[in-house]
Amino acid sequence: MIERAAAERLDREDPLAPWRNRFVDPGVVYLDGNSLGMAPLATIERVTSVLHEEWAAGLIRSWDQWLDLPARVGDRLAPIVGAPAGSVVVHDSTTVNLYQAVHAALGLSAWDTDRPPVLAVDPGDFPTDRYVVAGIAEALGGTVVGWAGEPDGDTRDDAASSTIDDRSGGPVDVAVRSLVDYRTAELVDLAAETERARERGTVVVWDLSHAAGAVEVDLAGAGVDLAVGCTYKYLNGGPGAPAWTYVAPSVADRVSQPVWGWFAQRDQFEMGDAFDPQPGARRFLLGTPGILGLAAAEVGIATVAEAGIDRIAAKGRRLTELALALCDHHGLPSPTPRDEHRRGAHVAVRVDAAELDRLHRELTSRGVIVDKRRPDLLRVGCSPLTTRYVDVHDGITAIARLVG
Amino acid sequence: MIERAAAERLDREDPLAPWRNRFVDPGVVYLDGNSLGMAPLATIERVTSVLHEEWAAGLIRSWDQWLDLPARVGDRLAPIVGAPAGSVVVHDSTTVNLYQAVHAALGLSAWDTDRPPVLAVDPGDFPTDRYVVAGIAEALGGTVVGWAGEPDGDTRDDAASSTIDDRSGGPVDVAVRSLVDYRTAELVDLAAETERARERGTVVVWDLSHAAGAVEVDLAGAGVDLAVGCTYKYLNGGPGAPAWTYVAPSVADRVSQPVWGWFAQRDQFEMGDAFDPQPGARRFLLGTPGILGLAAAEVGIATVAEAGIDRIAAKGRRLTELALALCDHHGLPSPTPRDEHRRGAHVAVRVDAAELDRLHRELTSRGVIVDKRRPDLLRVGCSPLTTRYVDVHDGITAIARLVG
Repeated sequence: MIERAAAERLDREDPLAPWRNRFVDPGVVYLDGNSLGMAPLATIERVTSVLHEEWAAGLIRSWDQWLDLPARVGDRLAPIVGAPAGSVVVHDSTTVNLYQAVHAALGLSAWDTDRPPVLAVDPGDFPTDRYVVAGIAEALGGTVVGWAGEPDGDTRDDAASSTIDDRSGGPVDVAVRSLVDYRTAELVDLAAETERARERGTVVVWDLSHAAGAVEVDLAGAGVDLAVGCTYKYLNGGPGAPAWTYVAPSVADRVSQPVWGWFAQRDQFEMGDAFDPQPGARRFLLGTPGILGLAAAEVGIATVAEAGIDRIAAKGRRLTELALALCDHHGLPSPTPRDEHRRGAHVAVRVDAAELDRLHRELTSRGVIVDKRRPDLLRVGCSPLTTRYVDVHDGITAIARLVG
Repeated sequence: MIERAAAERLDREDPLAPWRNRFVDPGVVYLDGNSLGMAPLATIERVTSVLHEEWAAGLIRSWDQWLDLPARVGDRLAPIVGAPAGSVVVHDSTTVNLYQAVHAALGLSAWDTDRPPVLAVDPGDFPTDRYVVAGIAEALGGTVVGWAGEPDGDTRDDAASSTIDDRSGGPVDVAVRSLVDYRTAELVDLAAETERARERGTVVVWDLSHAAGAVEVDLAGAGVDLAVGCTYKYLNGGPGAPAWTYVAPSVADRVSQPVWGWFAQRDQFEMGDAFDPQPGARRFLLGTPGILGLAAAEVGIATVAEAGIDRIAAKGRRLTELALALCDHHGLPSPTPRDEHRRGAHVAVRVDAAELDRLHRELTSRGVIVDKRRPDLLRVGCSPLTTRYVDVHDGITAIARLVG
């Protein structure tokens, strides 16, 4: 299993191997699809067509086909995350969508405006999530509690199981949680954690940025109310591609949030006096959608949908299994869970914090592209549609040589 | 002046005429650059290069050059609106940016949280502005007043001069105002209106969507605190191109707003525990910027900057003058101001409301692309870099024939 020949054999036997040919070959060992996915050839064609035919030639007339794009791309994404049609829209950024979703969740929670709200977020989670929660709490005079016992990712989930409301001395109204930890790749049980929170009176907003397109997700089956995520990682939507929002049909028509956008308006071009949001996820739409980014995202998302998330997730588990086996072989420590059903599609390698920048720089100069996360993690992204087993072999081997 | 030959002569003598060759010829009489500007050839080249070189080949390494893009494109836009370097960022949408700016303005105003805020917006203004203001007022338990005496655009500004605070029975904390009216093209006096509001204790957030790239604007000279605008109209940024935010350097470092974005964070990749926003306009940045849209906007903005806003605005006045003369000649009523210093770069033609859709449809089928705004306006956009005098002639003549 550790020989390069073994990795080559896995590639030969991989039913998803031909899908890599649908992407532009980067000419490097690319293990950062978990930060920015590779470019599908069809995306370049599609955006080129948007530039020439839809914008330059069609001009304003093309809005007839663009108006519906956030909902149409949302419907393409929906089955990848276990969501019904009409419950997902692709728009804006994870930051903005999370801001809307947390406000919407507050409206569904037990919070009433007579007391300050209590919000929870993992103090070690990605800054986007932490800062959005902190900003909302500040604006509402609320409190932010960590739902984790310890900020150290390794013990986070176990600690969290018993401490979701310990710090506040009372119930948490809304918690923002990542389904896959951006550092360790730890994957939590979506249904169990959603239910556990609900029993304690907490509405969870799930951030699926590191999960969508990498692992099987069943938002509807897990009883999730609200979720957001990006499309530029495993969904290969392109740099800064728009994010998405999911709202459960059971709550969609009674959620509200304070950013009232013209694109959410029913009978938009009647330009009515009063804001009257559309049903379903469309009520989260805001301003004029960026068409170039949305068209690019549509192709990336459609590619994942066509390949099938079950096959993609299964290959992700095999790629990360190989990566962990290689780490073990070379004595590289990794905080990524060994249980394949508790990890997403990347593997973190712990290195000497003082060496992090040098290692990252030297790997890059050798054509091995991984990510670094302070203080001491190199992240090896295994994006199943584009990452080959030999890439994992070559990448981990290169890290081991530099560390050793 | 009314003969087509006169329009042809104006085109021959037009120093900006060669600039149209930098755009893809749309093959129609395009008079809707005030809704979606034409496509610069250089934009298609640039986005193609972003797709192939920066994304597909450069992948994650290209973030080194992308990270700074919102501020870099903002600096290109700044001189077009009379803003100093560092005071403009290009990001998100007019809706989101307006939401942030109104909150920031509340912080600069006399409002304290012990009483409900009073917000003002023209009840006839574009829905984006009205809905954003209404949403914020609802969330804060505040009041929305019209600053205009009458919702009828024709008399709006005169009425407003005496009634900015009449309806509320007290001072207005924050007003959202459009510099150029999206229906009539009425252009208000930025410096005088900003000062008049300030004397009454009102902070104005200016929406320059229909002004930027069309008329001379001196944000710094007018003492404006906060402004937003889009880039897809006269700045030719492309469909749904990102919007922009201006914040005066004198207030930048003390404004705050509730959407705390990771891209606003000082030392972003240190991922610090506490949100600590950057100085200047960068503190309004939110999530990962959409690179395709931003790269496209950069080229459109740079094209306007290179041609020079003074020449562009001067041609805009001549184009709209011709349009109004043609309206008069054909007996077409127009609410657009006759004073060339009180109008932007479009001309509205009033038609029978019951005929609006049919007229618009028949014009389109004849290759004359104008906009329609309910209940009874056809809008003739005169985008100076791309609209020819013969386009104006042919467009107004076609309207006159169909109406007559």
